Amino acid sequence: MTALHTDLYEIRMAVSYLRRGMTEPATFSLFARDLPHDRGFLVCAGLADCLDFLARFHFDDDELDYLREELGLGERDLEALARLCFEGDVWAVPEGHVVFANEPLIEVTASLPQAQLVETTLLNFLTFQTAVATKAARCRIAADGAELVDFSARRTHGVHAAFAAARVSAMVGFAGTSHVAAASRFGLRPVGTMAHSYVEAFPSERAAFRAFAEDFPDATVFLVDTYDTVNGVRTAADLAKTLHLPSARVGVRLDSGDLDALSRVTRKILDDAGLPEARIMASGGLDEHAILRLVRAGAPIDSYGVGTKMGVSADAPSLDTAYKLVEYAGRPVMKTSPGKATLPGAKQVYRNGSAGPDVLTRRAEQAPHDSLPLLVPVMRAGERVGSGHEFADARARFEHDLAWLPEAAKRLRVPEPVGVQRSAQLDELAERTAKAFRSREAAGWR
Amino acid sequence: MTALHTDLYEIRMAVSYLRRGMTEPATFSLFARDLPHDRGFLVCAGLADCLDFLARFHFDDDELDYLREELGLGERDLEALARLCFEGDVWAVPEGHVVFANEPLIEVTASLPQAQLVETTLLNFLTFQTAVATKAARCRIAADGAELVDFSARRTHGVHAAFAAARVSAMVGFAGTSHVAAASRFGLRPVGTMAHSYVEAFPSERAAFRAFAEDFPDATVFLVDTYDTVNGVRTAADLAKTLHLPSARVGVRLDSGDLDALSRVTRKILDDAGLPEARIMASGGLDEHAILRLVRAGAPIDSYGVGTKMGVSADAPSLDTAYKLVEYAGRPVMKTSPGKATLPGAKQVYRNGSAGPDVLTRRAEQAPHDSLPLLVPVMRAGERVGSGHEFADARARFEHDLAWLPEAAKRLRVPEPVGVQRSAQLDELAERTAKAFRSREAAGWR
Repeated sequence: MTALHTDLYEIRMAVSYLRRGMTEPATFSLFARDLPHDRGFLVCAGLADCLDFLARFHFDDDELDYLREELGLGERDLEALARLCFEGDVWAVPEGHVVFANEPLIEVTASLPQAQLVETTLLNFLTFQTAVATKAARCRIAADGAELVDFSARRTHGVHAAFAAARVSAMVGFAGTSHVAAASRFGLRPVGTMAHSYVEAFPSERAAFRAFAEDFPDATVFLVDTYDTVNGVRTAADLAKTLHLPSARVGVRLDSGDLDALSRVTRKILDDAGLPEARIMASGGLDEHAILRLVRAGAPIDSYGVGTKMGVSADAPSLDTAYKLVEYAGRPVMKTSPGKATLPGAKQVYRNGSAGPDVLTRRAEQAPHDSLPLLVPVMRAGERVGSGHEFADARARFEHDLAWLPEAAKRLRVPEPVGVQRSAQLDELAERTAKAFRSREAAGWR
Repeated sequence: MTALHTDLYEIRMAVSYLRRGMTEPATFSLFARDLPHDRGFLVCAGLADCLDFLARFHFDDDELDYLREELGLGERDLEALARLCFEGDVWAVPEGHVVFANEPLIEVTASLPQAQLVETTLLNFLTFQTAVATKAARCRIAADGAELVDFSARRTHGVHAAFAAARVSAMVGFAGTSHVAAASRFGLRPVGTMAHSYVEAFPSERAAFRAFAEDFPDATVFLVDTYDTVNGVRTAADLAKTLHLPSARVGVRLDSGDLDALSRVTRKILDDAGLPEARIMASGGLDEHAILRLVRAGAPIDSYGVGTKMGVSADAPSLDTAYKLVEYAGRPVMKTSPGKATLPGAKQVYRNGSAGPDVLTRRAEQAPHDSLPLLVPVMRAGERVGSGHEFADARARFEHDLAWLPEAAKRLRVPEPVGVQRSAQLDELAERTAKAFRSREAAGWR
């Protein structure tokens, strides 16, 4: 990850700013304009990667050579780019918090070229990780206490996404991940059973199950649907008895078919075999809606393996995020294009302990009664500051916010987000900024 | 990218295979079970990353330490894993080719533990890159000759995905990418204009446009919708005249509003200003359907910047891919679970020069009349083989297949895929394999 991981226009603009000495402080605000369909909230994620990126931000020599040759930048431009690192201040909503549309996830104040150049990467990390964390949180809500594990590594959008999906799903309460490298990197619980190929590589299902039980007596989860699911469960139960496997260490995984009906048949077979503690895991194209149906039906499933649909946030694989200049050189600025207008100035979001709406204010405004600010300083002059950067802190914030979130906002279909009100001071600033802009334009400023 | 980038169950299975000496050759076949909704074809992509991964496949010491401590693997297991590298044979459909459901994208033949361990990563790379390439190809079809550029870097799922989206969109005919690092790595044309923040950082739109034209006289594309689009176009046209910018080097970008209506007004303003060669670029939430509407309406748009919806393949962010064992130790194998049954044995796909259906055969079958094989050897004993690995080759294959693809398969809504027939020999093998399995089960093989 280098400074070249950016859109060309960021570099063009930065070069233009540098040539003109436009290096006064600029504040950019990153937020989602709208919540995706059927989303009542977002779970902030991606900040850790953003801070790593900002801390290391620079152009290396190869990159500068590329810019010289490909874009025809001059030596003075390149010298100015070579000197750049990120020396700005960052306020952000820490990972794990729940937010709504129009609430800033991050605000960057830095010399205009610096703040401009980091746009693409900040948008990328925060958008996709927040989308995936939100999807995983919806699975958590649907599961109603049942165990969830991340099975998404095989169909996320590449390596970086696989790591992030494992991490953010754990942040919202998933118990583990199948992705070994992610488990290793983030200290998560690695989870895994067997694949159909294992069963097929042996001359019979029974031979495969026996071998697996011998090799992994402490965690023996049999995949039972390679040939005939009910037969598979009977074979697993019979072997568990024959080999005297401890009931609590045995499980079966159902990966196809009518999971509700099959889980009931499976439970009965396991109970009848004297394996009341043997666990039933379900997987195969699950998302929050499928989990909710199974939970509501009372299917006796102990653990859900959630893969692709969570890992790509299948029904909302992106968010309508924006990174907008809100102040430059002490002057508040705003876009006025219809449907995409923005609010000027650095901001804060205050949340009341009750379930009232959040309040979007100017950064320096006094806190409304009984309210706490969501945005906190996370970087000052390019150095990380503050506490709460630990993964455990992010988990705790999500648990807190999940408990706070009203049922109507947690609904998986047609939810009612808590919403956000603008403070009078913010409205006043917006009006004043628009008016100042109109009078400059009317005066034909050139 | 290391061997630990895999699901835990792959490691459990590999360990079990190694302990039991189950290291005879296994063949796995990777294919999409179905095409996503409204897809009439898929464009193969991701093979280059897969071959890089296979060529470097190994567990390093830190990873083995993790497996020792976290999974409690014994020293003999770890020694066996430490010795593993990928020494197998790979056949694949080269990147850029069009394929359909049930046609293998890749087939791996290797010692069972090796072939098993690479599953997660091969599925990941081929699934998401093929999904994104297919989405980009649909934009290409919709654009009907208009220029397309990739603007997706800010909302792809992470860094790896951003690089891949730039590359695979270029493979299917995109003219360039905004992502500078990807342009640099893959030799693509970097494309970029200015953002709204640039316009806002200056005291007026006119001042911003003037500065940009001074700094980038060779490629001056003005973003005109920060405040009022039509005013913005007038300002751009006026400045182009005032500064004597060459008409062919000037453009405007429309990023919001009714792009059809605005592009017509814009064209007229530019033409009236004596700028007939000035180009109009459109962007902002575009996908193949939006592009098709604009093209069909005759909107005078020269270039489309396609971002998020292409880069995440928004309506089909994953494919229903599977990596299935089809042969082990010379014995064809298959899954028989309802709805997820698989076909045994190594395969080939033959395509007829006319638009008849493809034929799915056993690997060693003779080619049907006038047909060419889609799968070719790309790795032998762990070493890359064959030609056609160059990016230009992938582009040429896509152009060829796009010309071959029937109109009905290219339709963006309710398409008719070309489809694939099974050869008699393959059907016969499937029947024989199922029968052999049933008789082993009936004999109560233990």
